[in-house]
Amino acid sequence: MTNKKREAQATLESLHQIFTIPEAPDSTLGRIEAEISQNLNGFLGNHIVATEKPLTEIEKDFASSQIPEQPQYVSDHTHHLLDKLISQSVHTSAPSFIGHMTSALPYFVLPLAKLMTGLNQNLVKIETSKAFTPLERQVLGMMHRMVYQQNDSFYEQWMHSAQHSLGAFCSGGTVANITALWVARNNLLKADGVFSGVGKEGLFKALKHYGYEGLAILVSERGHYSLKKAADILGIGRDSVIAIKTDSNNRIDCQELEQECARLEQKNIKVMSIVGVAGTTETGNIDPLREMAGIAQQFNCHFHVDAAWGGATLLSNKYRSLLDGVELADSVTIDAHKQMYVPMGAGLVVFKNPESVASIEHHAEYILRKGSKDLGSHTLEGSRPGMAMMVYASMHIISRPGYELLVNQSIEKAHYFAELIKADDDFELLTEPELCLLTYRYVPQAVQQFLQNADRKQQEEINVILDKLTKFIQKRQREAGKSFVSRTRIEVSHYHGRKVLVFRVVLANPLTTDAILQEVLKEQKQLAAESLQFLPQVLAKVIN
Amino acid sequence: MTNKKREAQATLESLHQIFTIPEAPDSTLGRIEAEISQNLNGFLGNHIVATEKPLTEIEKDFASSQIPEQPQYVSDHTHHLLDKLISQSVHTSAPSFIGHMTSALPYFVLPLAKLMTGLNQNLVKIETSKAFTPLERQVLGMMHRMVYQQNDSFYEQWMHSAQHSLGAFCSGGTVANITALWVARNNLLKADGVFSGVGKEGLFKALKHYGYEGLAILVSERGHYSLKKAADILGIGRDSVIAIKTDSNNRIDCQELEQECARLEQKNIKVMSIVGVAGTTETGNIDPLREMAGIAQQFNCHFHVDAAWGGATLLSNKYRSLLDGVELADSVTIDAHKQMYVPMGAGLVVFKNPESVASIEHHAEYILRKGSKDLGSHTLEGSRPGMAMMVYASMHIISRPGYELLVNQSIEKAHYFAELIKADDDFELLTEPELCLLTYRYVPQAVQQFLQNADRKQQEEINVILDKLTKFIQKRQREAGKSFVSRTRIEVSHYHGRKVLVFRVVLANPLTTDAILQEVLKEQKQLAAESLQFLPQVLAKVIN
Repeated sequence: MTNKKREAQATLESLHQIFTIPEAPDSTLGRIEAEISQNLNGFLGNHIVATEKPLTEIEKDFASSQIPEQPQYVSDHTHHLLDKLISQSVHTSAPSFIGHMTSALPYFVLPLAKLMTGLNQNLVKIETSKAFTPLERQVLGMMHRMVYQQNDSFYEQWMHSAQHSLGAFCSGGTVANITALWVARNNLLKADGVFSGVGKEGLFKALKHYGYEGLAILVSERGHYSLKKAADILGIGRDSVIAIKTDSNNRIDCQELEQECARLEQKNIKVMSIVGVAGTTETGNIDPLREMAGIAQQFNCHFHVDAAWGGATLLSNKYRSLLDGVELADSVTIDAHKQMYVPMGAGLVVFKNPESVASIEHHAEYILRKGSKDLGSHTLEGSRPGMAMMVYASMHIISRPGYELLVNQSIEKAHYFAELIKADDDFELLTEPELCLLTYRYVPQAVQQFLQNADRKQQEEINVILDKLTKFIQKRQREAGKSFVSRTRIEVSHYHGRKVLVFRVVLANPLTTDAILQEVLKEQKQLAAESLQFLPQVLAKVIN
Repeated sequence: MTNKKREAQATLESLHQIFTIPEAPDSTLGRIEAEISQNLNGFLGNHIVATEKPLTEIEKDFASSQIPEQPQYVSDHTHHLLDKLISQSVHTSAPSFIGHMTSALPYFVLPLAKLMTGLNQNLVKIETSKAFTPLERQVLGMMHRMVYQQNDSFYEQWMHSAQHSLGAFCSGGTVANITALWVARNNLLKADGVFSGVGKEGLFKALKHYGYEGLAILVSERGHYSLKKAADILGIGRDSVIAIKTDSNNRIDCQELEQECARLEQKNIKVMSIVGVAGTTETGNIDPLREMAGIAQQFNCHFHVDAAWGGATLLSNKYRSLLDGVELADSVTIDAHKQMYVPMGAGLVVFKNPESVASIEHHAEYILRKGSKDLGSHTLEGSRPGMAMMVYASMHIISRPGYELLVNQSIEKAHYFAELIKADDDFELLTEPELCLLTYRYVPQAVQQFLQNADRKQQEEINVILDKLTKFIQKRQREAGKSFVSRTRIEVSHYHGRKVLVFRVVLANPLTTDAILQEVLKEQKQLAAESLQFLPQVLAKVIN
């Protein structure tokens, strides 16, 4: 044997080991795994550094574009990950991380994640997923029933039918929304006489065949950005997503919606879909879904509801009525990785009519053969992991009443926080919580009083400075690492529709306590006091 | 406190526990986790039943559409999962499961999966992923360099640039292909004078503005079905995916390709993209990429390479040249969850030009603000898990030379299996392995001899029966549970292009031994012998 061959043989043997010899419990990876398993928050608290390092600094640790020529021992690499990656990751499950839609997770999802990875099923087809296929169909059935509340015989008939599907499981709300609008587009521009349908012939021929000048998707100005992305991908164009103004509660103005539909009809632009929002990303408000369904019926178009965030509210008998009319939607997006406490990567869309998805069905020779129950024949994605198991397990272990308590608690916590904000004269609540989201900002009492009587020009001048202050506080608070709220811009009616920069808070983490919320405001006041570079200007305005 | 309130309080407390109290090591879930960690194959071998249960039977266990009203203890539910789900899942990592593109995984991915889930980062934005964002950009940079081999300064300039991206990480090859063609479409039909681009105005106006009668995507008849799906979604239409015939090695006929481009040009149909396949799903063959790049240049169109399967071959210095010309592609799809031994859910596309993705860029107020480095501004998906960490860790622990050995081993194993098949007079090898895929079927020697001299009608009659035999053997072998090959239909030139049903084998599992391959053939011969309902017919034909 030559030296080179001997080396290759040795490497092959050590490679064989990583496929056959498990990590020892006392290895570095074994130890951090045990730490995570025993005390996740403790592990994250210990290993994620609290103070922010500039991104440009972090990038230096991820600067090499060479795939290593030397293998690294698992333990050495684990140290590297701990040191460079985990230490600079985000503690998304921290009870004081209330700025985005991430939360603490139940402990059982951790071993289940390992089980899922070990099983490594591919849900695109039965041959690589077997029982996971009926499991996923059941999860879709359960979510369908949560929305549409059909009877047992409906689900007996459709849940496991090869030619039908009650929905599509996917990686998240964006793919769910694209899938819904893809179905809507293909059903609208379906085969007709010599025309074999938009799916086969494309949009150019479809619009010519049907004689439309264009298509439109109507959604409130609070609609998620994924809808514009969907319109782009689907060839309809971002400009065709028409933003309808909202009322002071961030709900779509139905009169405006109806008028816009009529205007478009006159211009020979076909409304492809009206989209209702059930839990806007920025403020958590819910559109008047029943009324919107009526308008969709009137103009004979698809009615989609983006309930990526708010869908889980249907698990609460107490608050379910907030989504009144959702059962009239043709399709509904729900993210299980949001308020259903499942790890990242679990979204889905359900369809009222089990035949809807036929418009996007596709087949191949080696899988997805006609008549098979392969899930891949009506999903946007191809290969997909068995995430449905996480949703299935969570629904069984937490149960509907358990979810109800979690959902109710979140909403009520938001109400509590809103009261805290309102009780403090130096804060301004911009949007009241309907679900567990709210927005507010820091405005010293004297400035608030001045703003009330100021003219529009004065208001604008002050709001420009307040925007800077809000940004300053939000960034500093994030950098300090104790707590995190996000920031966004929303139009505020009492400032003549001006887009004002606000703190945005999402209160879905069951471990967030009242004390933490008090602490968040206290820290913000302290940061405001420190922001001497902004405050004098604000005060100067007030005094002049 | 009322009874109801007391009950709710108790449930809330037990809910709180699942978020705060870890699974005990001696709990059911703790025990199966330990089993998986210590001996994954043993666990799967013990818990997945070997013999097949009909899907309709399995469905009975997943028949309820009600979300449970009673919570289940984690341990009870784990028993349920073991009993109903895991037992009926597919042992995709078994060394004798050589029918699809799944393999054994290295052990270290199991604890990493838990770490990833525990961290629960969301890669859509820096605020929920921090160091994971530069990590993912580095992974894209490494994969980009693997394909395009630019120098250090190229990667220093672009890898972490906010306005650029070397690619997009996603859940799998389908989304990667859609993303590539989305970019191609938007760059082709870009803003021009008063026209603000297809992304904004849509396809109908875009084609009118540019004066094209239609668009086309050209790919060999062996192209993956996701390309038709992409054409459907993108509004181009499935009919616009034009299948070009292949030579006897399943490689695109470049003369035909060029002629078709010219024909389309004459009809004023713009070729949007030529797609090369680097590792066809069914046979593992690689198109003549360099020649195709030349044709793409001649017709001034995007050149995409679908290397979902074969991309990892670039890690092998020995076999890299099989993909000669891939560096001329405008975009390349690679699945890390295939030959890079990462768990399900890790695909990506890289772009030669870091500015390409600008055509699909999108922004929102609360995230993805202009100038930010948020990855979500140029991905099809929104929220995404930190799967890039798996690819990163694998590249460091296995290293390029390690991957080379794995890739070489797979290819050489396929050559060995091909020799086995050829050495046995009762098998017919239909496609020679170029990568580690091959196709073959069982044809008794006497029948093979007869087929050689038979006329076309006789051949057809026998092939019909042989198709049944192949299907019978494949199904029986799968049902017996000892080993698994898949089946597909491919056109065979020496049967006048007839689509023949064949066994399809993928040999990427490092644990698949020569002995297992011998056993697979032996079992197939036994099953053939048992198939008395088919064989007499075949023999009857031969004798007549």
